[in-house]
Amino acid sequence: MPRTPGPVRLAELSARLGVPLEGDGTFEIHGFASLVSAKADELVFLRSAVHRDALRASAARAVIAPPEVDVEGRAALRSPHPALAFSRAVGIFAPRLRPPEGVAAGAHVDPEAVIDPSASVGAGAVVGPRCRVGARSVVAPNATLVADIVIGDDSWVHSGAVLEPGTTVGHRVVLHAGVVIGADGFGYLADEDGRPVPMAQRGRVVIEDDVEIGANSTVDRATLDETRIRRGAKLDNLVQIAHNCDIGEDVLIASQTGLSGGTTVARGAILMGQVGAVGHLRIGERAFVAARAGLQRDVPDGARVYGAPATEEHGWHRQIAALRRLPELLRRVRRLERARGRDAGEGPASGGDSETS
Amino acid sequence: MPRTPGPVRLAELSARLGVPLEGDGTFEIHGFASLVSAKADELVFLRSAVHRDALRASAARAVIAPPEVDVEGRAALRSPHPALAFSRAVGIFAPRLRPPEGVAAGAHVDPEAVIDPSASVGAGAVVGPRCRVGARSVVAPNATLVADIVIGDDSWVHSGAVLEPGTTVGHRVVLHAGVVIGADGFGYLADEDGRPVPMAQRGRVVIEDDVEIGANSTVDRATLDETRIRRGAKLDNLVQIAHNCDIGEDVLIASQTGLSGGTTVARGAILMGQVGAVGHLRIGERAFVAARAGLQRDVPDGARVYGAPATEEHGWHRQIAALRRLPELLRRVRRLERARGRDAGEGPASGGDSETS
Amino acid sequence: MPRTPGPVRLAELSARLGVPLEGDGTFEIHGFASLVSAKADELVFLRSAVHRDALRASAARAVIAPPEVDVEGRAALRSPHPALAFSRAVGIFAPRLRPPEGVAAGAHVDPEAVIDPSASVGAGAVVGPRCRVGARSVVAPNATLVADIVIGDDSWVHSGAVLEPGTTVGHRVVLHAGVVIGADGFGYLADEDGRPVPMAQRGRVVIEDDVEIGANSTVDRATLDETRIRRGAKLDNLVQIAHNCDIGEDVLIASQTGLSGGTTVARGAILMGQVGAVGHLRIGERAFVAARAGLQRDVPDGARVYGAPATEEHGWHRQIAALRRLPELLRRVRRLERARGRDAGEGPASGGDSETS
Repeated sequence: MPRTPGPVRLAELSARLGVPLEGDGTFEIHGFASLVSAKADELVFLRSAVHRDALRASAARAVIAPPEVDVEGRAALRSPHPALAFSRAVGIFAPRLRPPEGVAAGAHVDPEAVIDPSASVGAGAVVGPRCRVGARSVVAPNATLVADIVIGDDSWVHSGAVLEPGTTVGHRVVLHAGVVIGADGFGYLADEDGRPVPMAQRGRVVIEDDVEIGANSTVDRATLDETRIRRGAKLDNLVQIAHNCDIGEDVLIASQTGLSGGTTVARGAILMGQVGAVGHLRIGERAFVAARAGLQRDVPDGARVYGAPATEEHGWHRQIAALRRLPELLRRVRRLERARGRDAGEGPASGGDSETS
Repeated sequence: MPRTPGPVRLAELSARLGVPLEGDGTFEIHGFASLVSAKADELVFLRSAVHRDALRASAARAVIAPPEVDVEGRAALRSPHPALAFSRAVGIFAPRLRPPEGVAAGAHVDPEAVIDPSASVGAGAVVGPRCRVGARSVVAPNATLVADIVIGDDSWVHSGAVLEPGTTVGHRVVLHAGVVIGADGFGYLADEDGRPVPMAQRGRVVIEDDVEIGANSTVDRATLDETRIRRGAKLDNLVQIAHNCDIGEDVLIASQTGLSGGTTVARGAILMGQVGAVGHLRIGERAFVAARAGLQRDVPDGARVYGAPATEEHGWHRQIAALRRLPELLRRVRRLERARGRDAGEGPASGGDSETS
Repeated sequence: MPRTPGPVRLAELSARLGVPLEGDGTFEIHGFASLVSAKADELVFLRSAVHRDALRASAARAVIAPPEVDVEGRAALRSPHPALAFSRAVGIFAPRLRPPEGVAAGAHVDPEAVIDPSASVGAGAVVGPRCRVGARSVVAPNATLVADIVIGDDSWVHSGAVLEPGTTVGHRVVLHAGVVIGADGFGYLADEDGRPVPMAQRGRVVIEDDVEIGANSTVDRATLDETRIRRGAKLDNLVQIAHNCDIGEDVLIASQTGLSGGTTVARGAILMGQVGAVGHLRIGERAFVAARAGLQRDVPDGARVYGAPATEEHGWHRQIAALRRLPELLRRVRRLERARGRDAGEGPASGGDSETS
């Protein structure tokens, strides 16, 4: 689907990606596509030999493929990481369309804000008092930096995103549309009459370099101190990060997962979708938390946990398998009870069941 | 609650809805209401004879009712589908207030955008480069069409909604407030150092005719190719549709459900709220997925599945019933073990439990 | 983290908070902080004696502490509710920065709207026809009041929030960024061909005084009549409240919980995160619904429910404990069957299992 602005020779691709070429270096590609939808002049990639049937059926005449996999007569760029090389090729030769530099007519920029001349601020975007926007960063149309926001270089705040006062964002950060950073956390105290009154929420959010946060996700400010999303962490859409969480480097959190206040996720952990965690837990380094797991305790470094309440992988699979056999087990126990009753000349044991299935 | 601009005679209602009238055709209604809140001059509807007590207590003097149900002396429009007829009457005689045609002062329309003169673009709305907006469509205040968006006729993009570049929207589509269409999917590759780097996301989203998407829901663009929401599909609020999903015609998806990348939902399927699905599944035609089900496998056409991991309806109900009896079962097995131990003159079996309840 | 505009003497804090002081009333504080991050001139609070080690390590020289807890030589303001007193002190002496009064340049205010002169309307905010905004209320940058909205006094509508037509908001209400109030509910009728068509949604949303709604949460309008959020209710981020719900006074609802249409939550109930409820339930007064509970039935007043399908606390804990022992139970039943088979000279019972673990 992404098209290159002009033709690109395979020899140039080979040189720029640093991967060897087999075939005609003068062949010109004009775009990038999946195996299914590619035209003859579009580059595709093959993850592994498993997909060779799809390659055979594809119109594409050039492919990035793992070494030694048969490419059925096509020109091949050889890489042990075909998807990575393909993704880089797209980034280099079909870069994402960027809005123009400068502040658009219809943007609302406070006189106390400082915007790098190479940055882009779109129509309807608000850059409030004392905000700073770094080099080549984009504040898209209708994005809102309320006040006292720092955005580093090469970051992108998409439309509809809202950064509440005091938020700091690093370099090469992507905040997708509708993201809300720095709303008040959910903390209430009972007053003298037992009614909930809000605890003052005056900390802030710090988002380090190379973080990406998906559409309509929310990251609350700390009560005091900081909520921090560390370098390279990636959050999917509709994720909730409560006040005072600390999300580690290179952590991945999939869609609709929610972390309660004060949760620490150590570096390299992976949380799949719709996970929930009660507050003040620690999820260990490189831990894996399966989709829909419900965490009530800390997760050790490197552990793999499943289910709700979450348990380690092997135990969970056995529980699930046993659960499926539970109706049968009820029948078997009833049969044993009857046999025992006959042996002893007794009626059915008290507490026995009257199930008729 | 909705009031008509002027009085409407029951005879006119009868004619426009194509349903027979019993009673005074000159009676004038001025609005539409529920049985509980109706005034005498407001039309109500009765789903079935079950609700006759509420009808009896209602002030309403005219009702849309199923044939042959006693309406307690009121004027009656008779329809086998009372709610449908009522809803149509509201649509005809108390149409939703529409914003004025044309581009409001304070809207931000790119010179390269093309907007039908009968369309409405509200204050603060952004219509970016190369966008097209069809006849009678509404781009509400502070909605954002970033760039290269096509909107068909009679569609409505509510305030705060964001359409990222390349999105195509059909006719009679409703995108509620805060919806985000076309954000990047959540796909990462390990680089040579094992760190997550984003896979380029350059496909697009296609939304066909008659689709409705609820507030703050998110539909991600495809990695390559398309994420597609087919004709007539309806999504509730806070739903997540990941990259490369294909949502079939007339599918219903309730609130907070999340579908991982590459999921296909076939036509007429119903997914209740808070469902989750791992990637690349197929949910069959007219399948029913119960609230909070967790899908790890394909769902056959017409199947009804429940629970997490999801299982077919009957098996799930038996599992749940058996689970409730599990503590009792533990006691029964212990009793059998003790009896067996007495018979054999043994102590308790090894592996037996020390529970004291 | 929050700093006071100028120095504040402890004697003044003591007087304004109405709590007794032990120590030097002339000591000046310049801010508020956590025990961990406090500087010497920042006030901290101590919840209970449990945290005395943290207090000992803290640089803070003044603390709000419970009566009679040793404060290690620091000046102490004594309160039985230290967090509450601390939060009030922050509110009084380091008030949240407010945007300036009046309508900002770049705000879009309809000529038919009425805005109190003490209110603040930010850049890019839309205040549509027939809206009214009360005294000292804030409509933040890029917030949208579409039409026919009433906002009381001292309320705050954050950036990116959208209020659809007809919504009424009371006094001292906080609607966080990205909140959507009054979108159409998810209600469909089968038409004569069996296809889903929307039921007209024309009721409205009423939000009473002292309500707070978290970022990107959604509250749908009623089909007819009202969806109502009553005085003092607090909703966290990404919460879904469907059409015709009635949320009681002082109710707390944590993040990512979703309530289906027509749910009533009685006063003082607490719903933790990621809870789901099928439609038309009643959740009783002061009920407690544990995180991730799935409600299919009414919850009695004062009940505590857990799990999905939700069950009362004690039963659930026993089920979970029993579930963990299920694999072991399978082995024990198999052992009993074998023993019985030996006694009776039989082979294994039919229906027995072939598990080999």
